[in-house]
Amino acid sequence: MLNTFILDKIIQNALAEDIGTGDITTLSTIPKDKKITGRFIAKEDGIICGIGVAQRVFELLDSLVQINVFAGDGYKAAKGDIIAEIFGNAQNILSGERVALNFLQRMSGIATRTHECAEAIKGTHAVIADTRKTTPGLRALDKYAVKTGGGSNHRYNLADGILIKDNHIQAAGGITAAVTAARKNSPHTLKIEVEAENFDMINEALACKADIIMLDNMTNEDMKKAVELIDGRALVEASGNMGEKDLLSVARTGVDIISIGALTHSVKAMDISLRFSL
Amino acid sequence: MLNTFILDKIIQNALAEDIGTGDITTLSTIPKDKKITGRFIAKEDGIICGIGVAQRVFELLDSLVQINVFAGDGYKAAKGDIIAEIFGNAQNILSGERVALNFLQRMSGIATRTHECAEAIKGTHAVIADTRKTTPGLRALDKYAVKTGGGSNHRYNLADGILIKDNHIQAAGGITAAVTAARKNSPHTLKIEVEAENFDMINEALACKADIIMLDNMTNEDMKKAVELIDGRALVEASGNMGEKDLLSVARTGVDIISIGALTHSVKAMDISLRFSL
Amino acid sequence: MLNTFILDKIIQNALAEDIGTGDITTLSTIPKDKKITGRFIAKEDGIICGIGVAQRVFELLDSLVQINVFAGDGYKAAKGDIIAEIFGNAQNILSGERVALNFLQRMSGIATRTHECAEAIKGTHAVIADTRKTTPGLRALDKYAVKTGGGSNHRYNLADGILIKDNHIQAAGGITAAVTAARKNSPHTLKIEVEAENFDMINEALACKADIIMLDNMTNEDMKKAVELIDGRALVEASGNMGEKDLLSVARTGVDIISIGALTHSVKAMDISLRFSL
Amino acid sequence: MLNTFILDKIIQNALAEDIGTGDITTLSTIPKDKKITGRFIAKEDGIICGIGVAQRVFELLDSLVQINVFAGDGYKAAKGDIIAEIFGNAQNILSGERVALNFLQRMSGIATRTHECAEAIKGTHAVIADTRKTTPGLRALDKYAVKTGGGSNHRYNLADGILIKDNHIQAAGGITAAVTAARKNSPHTLKIEVEAENFDMINEALACKADIIMLDNMTNEDMKKAVELIDGRALVEASGNMGEKDLLSVARTGVDIISIGALTHSVKAMDISLRFSL
Amino acid sequence: MLNTFILDKIIQNALAEDIGTGDITTLSTIPKDKKITGRFIAKEDGIICGIGVAQRVFELLDSLVQINVFAGDGYKAAKGDIIAEIFGNAQNILSGERVALNFLQRMSGIATRTHECAEAIKGTHAVIADTRKTTPGLRALDKYAVKTGGGSNHRYNLADGILIKDNHIQAAGGITAAVTAARKNSPHTLKIEVEAENFDMINEALACKADIIMLDNMTNEDMKKAVELIDGRALVEASGNMGEKDLLSVARTGVDIISIGALTHSVKAMDISLRFSL
Amino acid sequence: MLNTFILDKIIQNALAEDIGTGDITTLSTIPKDKKITGRFIAKEDGIICGIGVAQRVFELLDSLVQINVFAGDGYKAAKGDIIAEIFGNAQNILSGERVALNFLQRMSGIATRTHECAEAIKGTHAVIADTRKTTPGLRALDKYAVKTGGGSNHRYNLADGILIKDNHIQAAGGITAAVTAARKNSPHTLKIEVEAENFDMINEALACKADIIMLDNMTNEDMKKAVELIDGRALVEASGNMGEKDLLSVARTGVDIISIGALTHSVKAMDISLRFSL
Repeated sequence: MLNTFILDKIIQNALAEDIGTGDITTLSTIPKDKKITGRFIAKEDGIICGIGVAQRVFELLDSLVQINVFAGDGYKAAKGDIIAEIFGNAQNILSGERVALNFLQRMSGIATRTHECAEAIKGTHAVIADTRKTTPGLRALDKYAVKTGGGSNHRYNLADGILIKDNHIQAAGGITAAVTAARKNSPHTLKIEVEAENFDMINEALACKADIIMLDNMTNEDMKKAVELIDGRALVEASGNMGEKDLLSVARTGVDIISIGALTHSVKAMDISLRFSL
Repeated sequence: MLNTFILDKIIQNALAEDIGTGDITTLSTIPKDKKITGRFIAKEDGIICGIGVAQRVFELLDSLVQINVFAGDGYKAAKGDIIAEIFGNAQNILSGERVALNFLQRMSGIATRTHECAEAIKGTHAVIADTRKTTPGLRALDKYAVKTGGGSNHRYNLADGILIKDNHIQAAGGITAAVTAARKNSPHTLKIEVEAENFDMINEALACKADIIMLDNMTNEDMKKAVELIDGRALVEASGNMGEKDLLSVARTGVDIISIGALTHSVKAMDISLRFSL
Repeated sequence: MLNTFILDKIIQNALAEDIGTGDITTLSTIPKDKKITGRFIAKEDGIICGIGVAQRVFELLDSLVQINVFAGDGYKAAKGDIIAEIFGNAQNILSGERVALNFLQRMSGIATRTHECAEAIKGTHAVIADTRKTTPGLRALDKYAVKTGGGSNHRYNLADGILIKDNHIQAAGGITAAVTAARKNSPHTLKIEVEAENFDMINEALACKADIIMLDNMTNEDMKKAVELIDGRALVEASGNMGEKDLLSVARTGVDIISIGALTHSVKAMDISLRFSL
Repeated sequence: MLNTFILDKIIQNALAEDIGTGDITTLSTIPKDKKITGRFIAKEDGIICGIGVAQRVFELLDSLVQINVFAGDGYKAAKGDIIAEIFGNAQNILSGERVALNFLQRMSGIATRTHECAEAIKGTHAVIADTRKTTPGLRALDKYAVKTGGGSNHRYNLADGILIKDNHIQAAGGITAAVTAARKNSPHTLKIEVEAENFDMINEALACKADIIMLDNMTNEDMKKAVELIDGRALVEASGNMGEKDLLSVARTGVDIISIGALTHSVKAMDISLRFSL
Repeated sequence: MLNTFILDKIIQNALAEDIGTGDITTLSTIPKDKKITGRFIAKEDGIICGIGVAQRVFELLDSLVQINVFAGDGYKAAKGDIIAEIFGNAQNILSGERVALNFLQRMSGIATRTHECAEAIKGTHAVIADTRKTTPGLRALDKYAVKTGGGSNHRYNLADGILIKDNHIQAAGGITAAVTAARKNSPHTLKIEVEAENFDMINEALACKADIIMLDNMTNEDMKKAVELIDGRALVEASGNMGEKDLLSVARTGVDIISIGALTHSVKAMDISLRFSL
Repeated sequence: MLNTFILDKIIQNALAEDIGTGDITTLSTIPKDKKITGRFIAKEDGIICGIGVAQRVFELLDSLVQINVFAGDGYKAAKGDIIAEIFGNAQNILSGERVALNFLQRMSGIATRTHECAEAIKGTHAVIADTRKTTPGLRALDKYAVKTGGGSNHRYNLADGILIKDNHIQAAGGITAAVTAARKNSPHTLKIEVEAENFDMINEALACKADIIMLDNMTNEDMKKAVELIDGRALVEASGNMGEKDLLSVARTGVDIISIGALTHSVKAMDISLRFSL
């Protein structure tokens, strides 16, 4: 589900960054026609994500490199699992190794963390969502990894979603004015979300038919009351350092969406290695 | 010390990614000529890094935005410290906020972690170094953050450093053959580093005058012996999951460099907020 | 409301296309330091749009060129009106003239046509909207011109709006299946629109809570019935060769949105000239 | 005759613009391996142009999509004619449909209008030519469409043709000075064209051996006299709102070229549809 | 006369190539606020060309660097002449020095060689022209340098000039067929040049009204006869290893243009230094 | 050993520059399906370099063009040798001919000159090296050609090598201060080179363990003394107008490296032709 044009630009950029004017060590020591076989191995448990990206890294370097994927994106890998095998020209595979792993480990790290969060709220009707707190230049990959881990995507950027926050409300002169202005200026295909900090704000947002209400930094108790008050008239999103909260108790307040910046702003790479036999 | 050409391309890319065809919410609700004041505030202790990058984000959106930096890159911020003040057109500042914070929080996170590592080995002569395990597309920023945090940089990419690993040695037919080939093919301005897993390899590397010897996944005891064996004839680098080791005891083996992939592959964003008063 | 990054790329591309390796005629005949004054004049009635774009064309060639705008975007110009005055270096102004006019005339043409459509349905509650039938590479400008003329924007592209058409419905196995799949895979910030060709389809779309229902190529009579049936449970969009319909009678059926491909796929440039006095 | 490098950049740009981060609707509802067949059908009479461009749109998305072209560029299609058949992966074909049609309809519209103009002057020795009044970024396609429709191309841009207009003449101090300067500074491979508004100017242009004389906004009577006066010593081009003139009577004045800005600045898309069977 | 868009892209590319991720030596050793003064000095006689390009190199690195140019493009410098003075931030000036000199020395080398050729034929009516044998990526600069040295430019590329050579003639089935086809397909603003190897070919070219006839590898005697035969009915261009010929005797045959590939394919950099005082 | 990403960008840029909007002559005169055969022939003795680049030029225009290489990069060609044969579509081959030859002739020229220099010092232990005095935008190709001719590469750019010159020393307050600062700030994988003009400077450089000492503009006698003084404690590089020196006598002073700017700043293209039979 990753757009090829966006993906290829990101990968070519990464390869240019890492290979520079050429992998001198490899070009000096590895015979030109040498073949190599390698295995991607999970060195810890986690959700695999980015194996297609890794594959594309090698393809863009050398269309003859072959990869057999055993564990596609979304696979719950256990420590020791073989994720994929690679075979082909040794120079090209060694030159692409680091870039491929940098993508794969990072994306799997995001998917794994997202999966943990999604598991934590299993049984509730809430979903885990990402935010715009992604790594600059990699948003498409970050959001793909969140979906792979079982999360849902929030708006992609400032143009394809309307989220009216505190400053917008103040400057516009109130929620009603802000919602009205946004509705007038935006495509009719976009929902309107309002950030609310208290019940008055929720009531005003409902009155002007906001489609989504974001509860910002509320206690679970207040969120529960808010959900009751809203009563299905808008989607309800819980937000505010959710990465450090007990997600199950948040989900049990009845909110529809829990958005977590830490899914993408604080990433622990999943440990995956690429072992070769020459 | 960040190259403007590289930096501007990264920032423009990030702004295009986040702003898309326009920040509808802000454009709809904030009057065109409204001014805003904001403060970047540290919400936890850490080493500030990327404030110049954040500044450039706003400059590229609007050359009239003013930023006063109180805590430049490298500053040890305490929770609550005001890092910088920003003043200018509200639409542009609100549209750039997220991108600026995404850079600043991430880079400060890397600098903070590096600083902790550097502090841990204070008093020894070793230095903490980064690796090529950076986030694709952001290597220049990642490495800058490592330096800001008190670390040292390893080679930037495959073209500006020679690191002969296991596969290179095998394919070339031994360390001597590999070093000879690399020396013949590379600029005389680059040092040659060899990854060694045992004392025989160290001896062979020394015999062919490797400039740097990387000790890969050795015990501290073995590293200590290796340092004695090498005895100043080459720089000694400790490597292999160093992010999870007791760095002080590694440093006390006498190695010159401890390189840590986790500095950049697993980043915890530093919590920094941008608070506005309209 | 045009994003600078997008706009500048479009303009630089256009200037490169038209100036090539240099405006030989001008460089050969006009003294380097010659100044020139010019006036943009409406040669027919219409809605001005793109004067800011024209301004940016000259700015990107020469930051010292001065433009005073008398009739900004949205102004209803009468034949003979002076829209703006320009003053500055003659070589640069003459080299940029054609590109600036190409943008201005085209965008004003779109705005003028849109305005006519919007006027035609004045007094009804419907709005005129654009489509994705824009000129490749100029969508941002085309959609801006539609808004300037008093129209509304439909989704920008395939990623920021969901529009389930005939083929999607067939392949997914029905409207309900298609809507469910789309809702599951898309950001919760996007509305879901379904194209309906008959009343059964409308009923099914309503049942699965589509946010918008597009009535495709229906008679006005059927559209009226459809509006009654839908009864506020979804937005209603009229579509299908609307450029050739009597818009007022369409609007009087009670639909909320009338989307017209011809606004942007068939453009008649507004006649605007740039007259110089050396 | 379209340069691949230029074409591919234009198409990739258009696809990126329309697909954004991915066609959510299609990806959600159409099974990954579903195949689809479609037919491009002329819904009105016209000259087909851009079918190769449409083909390339799909190729760049998916090299396995197959297209059989029945009516290549230049074909005079009647309403109902099948222009081409397409077969392949449904997701990719549906995602590329709009962009392909946007090119095809627009280019066919230009070719059709040009063809009408060329037909109007059939039997005379004049040719219809385009101008630089093209849509920014699409000049290569616009000019290709004019040729496909039976027109001829004027200079591509300011660097590959010399056209001395009123302002150049004034600033240079007369036609002779301007022509001399232009001849001295330009490649000897380019002809020199002078815009003349009266017979004195024509005489001066002839005296300094201008290769082409443009008659700007002259009456047919005056153009006839001008042609007699010039008597083969230079090519004669008629210009000035030619889109609104009776072209045959213009051609009968004996001019060699009639250049018409409206061919490309005011385009009516030809109605062509792409009908699918899943 | 160099187009800014083209020039800036070339310079930014060159700076990116040479500075990479940063000038470590300078950044490490030169204090951030240090100022420096320097002088560009001619170390041999020659025609200066590219001083504006050098200036732009520094401007793009640092808009505050000041340059006073004493000897602009076209100046005949004697050994020891001071061409320009530079003053500003030492880090930025030292980082840009090499790129600026690489442009300046190369362009001055081309201008100097061209000037020698132009001087050699002084008094005749012939002009020296360049070819398409330029350094890939630098054609705009190479051709500018030729003009600066007193030469004239041939067509810029394959699109803005028609040159019918041996292979074209053979494939088209003769000169007449080739000229007719080219005339039909090309803008009426371009002249048509035919390469002729003997008098029959010249006669045929004249018969079909070629605008320029290129005499390829003819003896001076034959060229003289050819000039007489052509007798003003077409421009005459002498071509074929002209870099190694006695140019004056070629010019005296009466040809109009002598085109010399060696002007740009074999460049001897002019020795120019940049001397600093800190 | 040329990085594909860098090479392709350079070639595409060159093709865009030379082909512009299309090779009108060829498109007009050569039938679309015509095939052509051609031979690259050395018209003088020299070292072939760039035949792979030439091959890639045609590949990027037309993947079906076939090239059989008889004399690969590094081959010592004698006048008359056939270097390669080419076969394929005539339009595409003719359109790519000039660009391919521009690369091939230039690179072979550099390789040939380098080879002459390397031959001149045969039997000594010195090597010939290039500098940063390359043609802007073509450094990767220039340096590749130097290696092909038997030379060695100096640092690629300012980021991957440290070369402390006069100005750095002055600004830093002496060699020791400069070396210390550079060592502290740079990756441990890079050697440190110091430019020395006299024996005091050499002694200081040795004292602070510079890895390479550049002797700038010294007499052969002084260089000999310097080599003795340094006595293997650092690599010794001879520099300063080496292109005009007797290289053998320089090499016999015992220096390790002789770096020659003229290898790349003053290039004489090797004469290679491409002869066709239609």
